[in-house]
Amino acid sequence: MTLTVDLNADMGESFGPWVMGRDAEVLDVVTSANVACGVHAGDWDVMAQTMAAAAARGVGIGAHPGFPDLQGFGRRKMHLPHASLAHLVQYQVGAAQAMARAAGTEVRHLKLHGAMANMASADRDMALACYEAALAVAPDIIIMVMAGTQQQAAAEALGCNVACEIFADRAYNADATLVDRSQPGAVIHDADLAGQRITRMVKDGAIHAEDGSRIPARIDTICLHGDTPEALDIARSVRSKLEEAGITLRSFAGAPL
Amino acid sequence: MTLTVDLNADMGESFGPWVMGRDAEVLDVVTSANVACGVHAGDWDVMAQTMAAAAARGVGIGAHPGFPDLQGFGRRKMHLPHASLAHLVQYQVGAAQAMARAAGTEVRHLKLHGAMANMASADRDMALACYEAALAVAPDIIIMVMAGTQQQAAAEALGCNVACEIFADRAYNADATLVDRSQPGAVIHDADLAGQRITRMVKDGAIHAEDGSRIPARIDTICLHGDTPEALDIARSVRSKLEEAGITLRSFAGAPL
Amino acid sequence: MTLTVDLNADMGESFGPWVMGRDAEVLDVVTSANVACGVHAGDWDVMAQTMAAAAARGVGIGAHPGFPDLQGFGRRKMHLPHASLAHLVQYQVGAAQAMARAAGTEVRHLKLHGAMANMASADRDMALACYEAALAVAPDIIIMVMAGTQQQAAAEALGCNVACEIFADRAYNADATLVDRSQPGAVIHDADLAGQRITRMVKDGAIHAEDGSRIPARIDTICLHGDTPEALDIARSVRSKLEEAGITLRSFAGAPL
Amino acid sequence: MTLTVDLNADMGESFGPWVMGRDAEVLDVVTSANVACGVHAGDWDVMAQTMAAAAARGVGIGAHPGFPDLQGFGRRKMHLPHASLAHLVQYQVGAAQAMARAAGTEVRHLKLHGAMANMASADRDMALACYEAALAVAPDIIIMVMAGTQQQAAAEALGCNVACEIFADRAYNADATLVDRSQPGAVIHDADLAGQRITRMVKDGAIHAEDGSRIPARIDTICLHGDTPEALDIARSVRSKLEEAGITLRSFAGAPL
Repeated sequence: MTLTVDLNADMGESFGPWVMGRDAEVLDVVTSANVACGVHAGDWDVMAQTMAAAAARGVGIGAHPGFPDLQGFGRRKMHLPHASLAHLVQYQVGAAQAMARAAGTEVRHLKLHGAMANMASADRDMALACYEAALAVAPDIIIMVMAGTQQQAAAEALGCNVACEIFADRAYNADATLVDRSQPGAVIHDADLAGQRITRMVKDGAIHAEDGSRIPARIDTICLHGDTPEALDIARSVRSKLEEAGITLRSFAGAPL
Repeated sequence: MTLTVDLNADMGESFGPWVMGRDAEVLDVVTSANVACGVHAGDWDVMAQTMAAAAARGVGIGAHPGFPDLQGFGRRKMHLPHASLAHLVQYQVGAAQAMARAAGTEVRHLKLHGAMANMASADRDMALACYEAALAVAPDIIIMVMAGTQQQAAAEALGCNVACEIFADRAYNADATLVDRSQPGAVIHDADLAGQRITRMVKDGAIHAEDGSRIPARIDTICLHGDTPEALDIARSVRSKLEEAGITLRSFAGAPL
Repeated sequence: MTLTVDLNADMGESFGPWVMGRDAEVLDVVTSANVACGVHAGDWDVMAQTMAAAAARGVGIGAHPGFPDLQGFGRRKMHLPHASLAHLVQYQVGAAQAMARAAGTEVRHLKLHGAMANMASADRDMALACYEAALAVAPDIIIMVMAGTQQQAAAEALGCNVACEIFADRAYNADATLVDRSQPGAVIHDADLAGQRITRMVKDGAIHAEDGSRIPARIDTICLHGDTPEALDIARSVRSKLEEAGITLRSFAGAPL
Repeated sequence: MTLTVDLNADMGESFGPWVMGRDAEVLDVVTSANVACGVHAGDWDVMAQTMAAAAARGVGIGAHPGFPDLQGFGRRKMHLPHASLAHLVQYQVGAAQAMARAAGTEVRHLKLHGAMANMASADRDMALACYEAALAVAPDIIIMVMAGTQQQAAAEALGCNVACEIFADRAYNADATLVDRSQPGAVIHDADLAGQRITRMVKDGAIHAEDGSRIPARIDTICLHGDTPEALDIARSVRSKLEEAGITLRSFAGAPL
């Protein structure tokens, strides 16, 4: 039996004349792209360009909806009624579906962005509202969730396609939550270490926490970043270490989960 | 043989706390609703509410994309490269498709808004860019065009589903263009007159110009307005006069064109 | 000695083609106008028109800054660092000052809007951040505060010009907070009652709470609304009852507080 | 007699999380900063940071208003009534004045941005509308104009403080217009050449056109760019060549023009 894992990163986060991230380089590393949908970042031109580039490389496309707060990049908490939240997600998923269709491809997964994601990881009802909304317009979409959070609980309760994600550059507590950024060692800066660590976890089917404990977990995809040279180094190291270990890298497109 | 015609009006043009139009009343008159897509007007909540109300009354739903100029309500000219224009239309059509799906219905037609529509009515290449873009994401969509303009020429060149529109409250020149608003009689304010005039044109299959001339034209739909009490009176008169004349009012949904 | 009080209302809350409120009618009732500054509502054209109309009637002009959330009308909580909050307030006050200068008048007071106001009424440090920011760009500005809240505490700590506000259409608890809108009687709908009640409080120099208790309070201005016919009736009743009682209505412009 | 010239560059064009330009490096070269005002680019936080950095280096501050088109960066033509244009300029100048005051400095000059600037350079009435609007709220402001265009004609007709600008990296036609970008040699890429050329023109008090002709011109300021390494090289070369030639570099602040 062959181990398989997906590598995902956010992209398409430029806006108008403002460039963000090194999407072309990241696309050479990942198998799935979480594409901003023109609300917290991205615009129709950026979406079209990003999706065409992803499709050309065989990288799977996900809708990456966020809060309507461009200046705050969707990173500031907003407290919306669940009905509004549902409409907000549906609007963005639909826009992404059309842009993907125009690029000759399709939206395969959904990943929430920024404050919307963080709030949903701690609030099962909010996660349910977002995911049900997305499934109402894209019944086969794969919901990408942070492993071990209320996101995962909500998606599993819905009985939909789910992909569980761990982070390449973050240390975990024994309860599978992320070590707070204020703690030493919370963020991993060493590319070799990151690659080895992720490979061990994928092979073991478990999150390895800071205290040495082992938390069995479903690991379908690894979250990478590409906004700094260091992040790109980590991304490349994760990919090469996984490949050296004989693990198959594959997006969700066409693959049974 | 029964004559059939559609009645359309723009709606869903409220935004956040700002209400525009009397959508509930207009929905009782029209058979097709052109729903703003959150760029020049409307937002995800307004779209959801408008589409649910339209679906509940069996009114057909159209995407009504416009320029990204909320303050200007999409009425100010913007000069975009055709590729950007295509992305802009696709983004809005996709968002509308998802919102319609979530409301248990679907987008059946496309009508351009404001300055985008006016520019496209005089610029065949621009109209082509917009319509090709929409068809790339919604191949069966019906393109609603102003009869006799470059919009119609472009849509017919594409061989797609087309619906030709005339205006209930505007006088026509002998070349099928609208009498300029600065001219006396350009806008029809008398509800009875408007209803009788439209009924004659639909029965005759021709636009009747101000100078008495008759321009054979395909008339699939009548454009109504609902933003003032006078406009609503005209809309109601058009509907009742058409019904009195035995003309069937029917949206495009499910009907072969 | 003559009793004097100011009557204030929010206005200039239209945006682009969307009209909100009955500003022309409200301007005939109030002595101070809180003008939206183009961020949560209003735009440069609306500001210019509103300020010109206010100046023509001798109504004093205030800057009414809010959160950058047009769709949410500044009514949704946003959690900004105090430095950003300060910049946000300064930006809007400066824009208002220029628009007022262009209209031949000046900004005399500041009143926070929506969620920014509500959050500041319970958070002294946030109120301080907003008010210090405004004073840094408009040292003589009068800070309009909700009587008895952290807004008042913050403004008094700064030693600046302060105007304390009570609401014409809201009932008060014995601790000077507003009765929650979910409680019966929280909102006053009877115009006569509202006018009599406010007049008694102004003459008495005290807030009269629901339970009959009397809370001595500085009352410099009465907050009115003009967005519904009922609200306008209340506003007019408050004005006429105060005038009948011989109380002078006067804006802050030119008047020593 | 000492020759004096100002060096200006656009800055503060970042927005939210998106960085544009190398403002810190450019501030070490220029004497005047044209600061975006939160409409086509920039936001209140960026403005505050940019103005504080400029003030700390003694660089003069200008308001740099543009069209309300963030995605298009104010580079797309918009056709606004002159009254709206006036309000748009006043709003931005006022916001900039407040942000400057909060940073302990003041707005000394005005320079139009992007499509607004280009349209005004060919349309005297539009330039007049913009400049009169700015002067109504900032009577002493220095209007920075493209030498030889309708901008200069308009500003001189108003009898206000004017600063005439030439471009460090653009070739000129014999009628003082810029050589079209599509022509070879239109844009100067050689830093040494750019520095020498500008120095000759400043000493000569004339624009030197491509065909060798000499157009006497008032040269108060040189427009530099800092968005690419090449642009920064040109900026630094212009500064050092001017200094080598004994020309004094000085912003408008406090200096009689």
